[in-house]
Amino acid sequence: MTLTAPAATIGLDTVADVAAQLRVDSVRSSTSAGSGHPTSSMSAADLFAVLVTRHLRYDWDDPGSAANDHLVLSKGHASPLLYSLFKAVGVVSDDELMNGYRRFGQRLQGHPTPALPWVDVATGSLGQGLPDGVGIALAGRYLDRQPYRVWVLCGDSEMAEGSIWEALDKAAYYRLSNLTVLVDVNRLGQRGPTDLGWDVDAYARRAEAFGARALVVDGHDLTAVDEALTAAGNPPDDRPTVILARTVKGRGFSEVEDSNDWHGKPFPPDMAERAVRELGGVRNLTVRGPRPVATGTDGASPTADPAARPVTTEPTGPSTPARYDVGEPVPTRKAYGDALVALGARNPRVVALDGEVSNSTYAVEFARAHPGRYFEMFIAEQQMVAAATGLAARGYRPFASTFAAFLTRAYDFIRMGAVSGADLCLVGSHAGVEIGPDGPSQMGLEDLAMMRAVQGSTVLYPSDATSTVALTEAMAVLPGISYLRTTRGKYPVLYPDGEAFPVGGSKVLSSSDEDAVTLVGAGVTLHACLAAADMLADEGIRARVIDCYSVKPIDDATLAAAVAATGGRIVVAEDHHPEGGLGSAVKDSLVADGRVAPSMVHLAVRGMPGSGSAKELLAWAGIDADHIASAARSLVTG
Amino acid sequence: MTLTAPAATIGLDTVADVAAQLRVDSVRSSTSAGSGHPTSSMSAADLFAVLVTRHLRYDWDDPGSAANDHLVLSKGHASPLLYSLFKAVGVVSDDELMNGYRRFGQRLQGHPTPALPWVDVATGSLGQGLPDGVGIALAGRYLDRQPYRVWVLCGDSEMAEGSIWEALDKAAYYRLSNLTVLVDVNRLGQRGPTDLGWDVDAYARRAEAFGARALVVDGHDLTAVDEALTAAGNPPDDRPTVILARTVKGRGFSEVEDSNDWHGKPFPPDMAERAVRELGGVRNLTVRGPRPVATGTDGASPTADPAARPVTTEPTGPSTPARYDVGEPVPTRKAYGDALVALGARNPRVVALDGEVSNSTYAVEFARAHPGRYFEMFIAEQQMVAAATGLAARGYRPFASTFAAFLTRAYDFIRMGAVSGADLCLVGSHAGVEIGPDGPSQMGLEDLAMMRAVQGSTVLYPSDATSTVALTEAMAVLPGISYLRTTRGKYPVLYPDGEAFPVGGSKVLSSSDEDAVTLVGAGVTLHACLAAADMLADEGIRARVIDCYSVKPIDDATLAAAVAATGGRIVVAEDHHPEGGLGSAVKDSLVADGRVAPSMVHLAVRGMPGSGSAKELLAWAGIDADHIASAARSLVTG
Repeated sequence: MTLTAPAATIGLDTVADVAAQLRVDSVRSSTSAGSGHPTSSMSAADLFAVLVTRHLRYDWDDPGSAANDHLVLSKGHASPLLYSLFKAVGVVSDDELMNGYRRFGQRLQGHPTPALPWVDVATGSLGQGLPDGVGIALAGRYLDRQPYRVWVLCGDSEMAEGSIWEALDKAAYYRLSNLTVLVDVNRLGQRGPTDLGWDVDAYARRAEAFGARALVVDGHDLTAVDEALTAAGNPPDDRPTVILARTVKGRGFSEVEDSNDWHGKPFPPDMAERAVRELGGVRNLTVRGPRPVATGTDGASPTADPAARPVTTEPTGPSTPARYDVGEPVPTRKAYGDALVALGARNPRVVALDGEVSNSTYAVEFARAHPGRYFEMFIAEQQMVAAATGLAARGYRPFASTFAAFLTRAYDFIRMGAVSGADLCLVGSHAGVEIGPDGPSQMGLEDLAMMRAVQGSTVLYPSDATSTVALTEAMAVLPGISYLRTTRGKYPVLYPDGEAFPVGGSKVLSSSDEDAVTLVGAGVTLHACLAAADMLADEGIRARVIDCYSVKPIDDATLAAAVAATGGRIVVAEDHHPEGGLGSAVKDSLVADGRVAPSMVHLAVRGMPGSGSAKELLAWAGIDADHIASAARSLVTG
Repeated sequence: MTLTAPAATIGLDTVADVAAQLRVDSVRSSTSAGSGHPTSSMSAADLFAVLVTRHLRYDWDDPGSAANDHLVLSKGHASPLLYSLFKAVGVVSDDELMNGYRRFGQRLQGHPTPALPWVDVATGSLGQGLPDGVGIALAGRYLDRQPYRVWVLCGDSEMAEGSIWEALDKAAYYRLSNLTVLVDVNRLGQRGPTDLGWDVDAYARRAEAFGARALVVDGHDLTAVDEALTAAGNPPDDRPTVILARTVKGRGFSEVEDSNDWHGKPFPPDMAERAVRELGGVRNLTVRGPRPVATGTDGASPTADPAARPVTTEPTGPSTPARYDVGEPVPTRKAYGDALVALGARNPRVVALDGEVSNSTYAVEFARAHPGRYFEMFIAEQQMVAAATGLAARGYRPFASTFAAFLTRAYDFIRMGAVSGADLCLVGSHAGVEIGPDGPSQMGLEDLAMMRAVQGSTVLYPSDATSTVALTEAMAVLPGISYLRTTRGKYPVLYPDGEAFPVGGSKVLSSSDEDAVTLVGAGVTLHACLAAADMLADEGIRARVIDCYSVKPIDDATLAAAVAATGGRIVVAEDHHPEGGLGSAVKDSLVADGRVAPSMVHLAVRGMPGSGSAKELLAWAGIDADHIASAARSLVTG
């Protein structure tokens, strides 16, 4: 039987059948896979049945439609429920559900990813789907200007993640009445009761305090759920809606209902058979709920945005970046801001976010030039990266910046951004001990290691303003996670305007046939390498100096040639801990090349720094010109 | 003038003088250093003046006293205020304040660290001091059983960090009435207004919703602040207290009061002079507030703990770990649980925390054996690591576990734990693609890179149950951040009970004079290396197999000897992305040794995995026995 219906014409009796089917298929698919979370799916089946039949406005024949609502499964382990929903709307076959779920090479993975065209973002690390959904809702409200709604299903356990509250805080601040959060309060986590149990009122108080409208319902009362979803879809004000649904884990199968023993376990075949029987047997209903509202309609509520936030995707501001004179002292972070303004002027899909330090990262320049495409995330780095992921899912190109040190706060979100296949441009300023007196809490000393280890990432580390501009522009078309590391202090511009900086390349700044040693730096240490080369030249030692601005991918050919030409002697200096950064990238390259055994000195920040001036700390770490020259000298003469 | 007084005998007129002195010294110290945050210090000066003179029970002559209250500066950038307080109580001289602040090699760093004996934890990455304070309060309430109080000063900007709400959630859950949070609501962040501005009632609603008692005060009304602190120190119930203090940034110097232009900037000397004049000039008051309550008193409120949580530091449970038979299939995560139970029985300072996955990490075994020393942190990995840091500050040895993938959520807290000098034992289970059907969101594939890059860290990766037990025991006495990586599946025990596994060592499992190639693995890939060696032996190729259980520090000598003995031929296989992990550690070691150019094949997880069985995914990633044998074969014959 196939039912395709306009909004609200599928009766609740049919909805009940759909709910039973979702439960049955959740049981069948997980048992057939031998793993999965049937009970966590069953608690939310009524919520999903009402949502998909009567509220989710979605053209299942055109998942790319800009008018479609968005459905985010923040509790990603309830994938059997989501995939059963996909069967119920007729886009996944029963065969795929039964033979593809959690199987190698298949798209119905253990936790959903955008390998499925109906999935915007990968989930499975809890507390991320809602923050991602905030990014999608931001796009809908301020950029797409479409009336689509964003529906997010959260588990109650994940409400313990701080990122959930970062998300609700931003959803309220940005008046995202297009966002509805359904919380499946089944009271049981993986290992036992949650800290709030079935205290749905406590959740409601928290949601209200964070600026949302909270609705409490019995999550198995189809009428009540339907009324709540209707209310959520027709918000009386600019607040997001949070529906606290009291549910029972394993609902519908009496053997496991509200049991603490059945998290994340498929039922054995005989038990699954009993469950299916109790749930009324296998169904093969296909239902289609409401279709999306015609595109082009402005979804912004008329009462929204009293602060008169500019809502525009039109380019404004200068379209060419500042040019810099060679020798002029310019911080690379400032050049990043300049470049981003120009990029934004040329490309209306470019958006920027920052974690309340935009006057330090220079994202503030973009905020001033393109205020309609700038999203202040305050001090909430997790939400910043998640919002970027949601915006990327809507086809925008987000640049998200904070201190390099504080991107560590968002590492799980960056990792999951890679699983989502999101194209995110991340920028970390104030790298290394170079920042000086603020001390180690503010020094990015792990960021290169962290970013290199992300699957498919690109890691860039410019030393001057000209290369920063070029690399910022290059990032705007890179796939996956890209990272730009900028420096606090002013250093002289090294390259004339117009110089090319291909990703994966490098620059040989000093080279001769008599080079005795190779010096490799990036950022502040490149300037130290240049100074060291001058010192060595005075002693008659010629050094080849390489600007390794592309840390991943790295310029294997240039490094190999340089090391071969300089008798294997190489000094690498980096303002980063010794593991996983520039030195590690150079070693990976040279070992893979394998032609020579490099005599390598790797200068890096090996101790725990304190406060001091940049000069004092670079000397203390042993990564200044004196130490580079000394290391080179010992290689050449030692 | 020196005033030393019992509680509440320093009059509010003197408190006002102290507040003025704190402001003056905040101005003077930051101007003298040429950097710092005077205005962020001035807004909270009245709060600190009242606190230190009349409420903080602290023996300044004995900072190590177990009875002392604890003061945590969560808004670490207000270090001028904290250091001025240290001058006001006579433990830091005016000379040190004026000439040591933010200077190289000095202890008065830009943000406070435990280099100062009155500082428990390093702050400066916002949103961490309160979570750390929760750990200290947990120790006071459940382990030390001392009546000390924990006072945390938060900035209003940092209330946007989700970790603040994780902390309050746990503070309420654990009934930490010994915790008081003072929020300095000066309405201005670094770049502009906070999202809630001066809406102290909104903050209060949030705090109440999260289970705290909220008090709203004018943060410059000494009487009101005193009353609030008195109330906080005498809680009527088991809730923590949050004091929302409406304050003015730069308070006391009319030129900068409530100005958006003076965040994080010292005043120029002429301006500083005017500020000091307006604030009444330089003072050199020394004041001492109340002394701690005699130790030994039980601080737990009689109404506390209706759930009858066991409160004990006495060892319970078996004192010797399980022994395993060679060949028996045991998951290393299970051996971790076994080892932790035995360790806890012998050492009453060992405590354990987990992020709601204790039945997966096997921390549940410790929770059962030593319930009084186990702290469930639910799904809040940031708070888990922060609580561990606070517990470590009180002299406990915390073991904190979750999936390896989800430790990425806490990277900023781990990094700051290193700055604190905290001895933290972190354990990540479910490493790599080996976990199978759950898919990439649950696979730890960046954890080795992340943990190696932490300053002073130790990274351990056992392959069998026996070595897991030995390494768990070794961690309990390691300084700094140590990390143990465990595997989901069952693999045969390789080593007999009693085998030693020194940190920095390795095991050569197969060795002969005819070895043609070295195979290096750890965890699941070691078993693949052993199987590959068997396959190669059948073809007449002898392979040396190394169990590299200590990834940092790594066994340089054994690796160098093996590579030299096998003609430079080496295959390293790891269930981790190729950057920064085991392969990187081996390359760092071999390049530093420098004697040979290794012919190395580095097998790692290079693509984005999906779901599948462990066997399928290990094959897909190219890190199973077949691929290791094939790589070895090509090195030997190629």
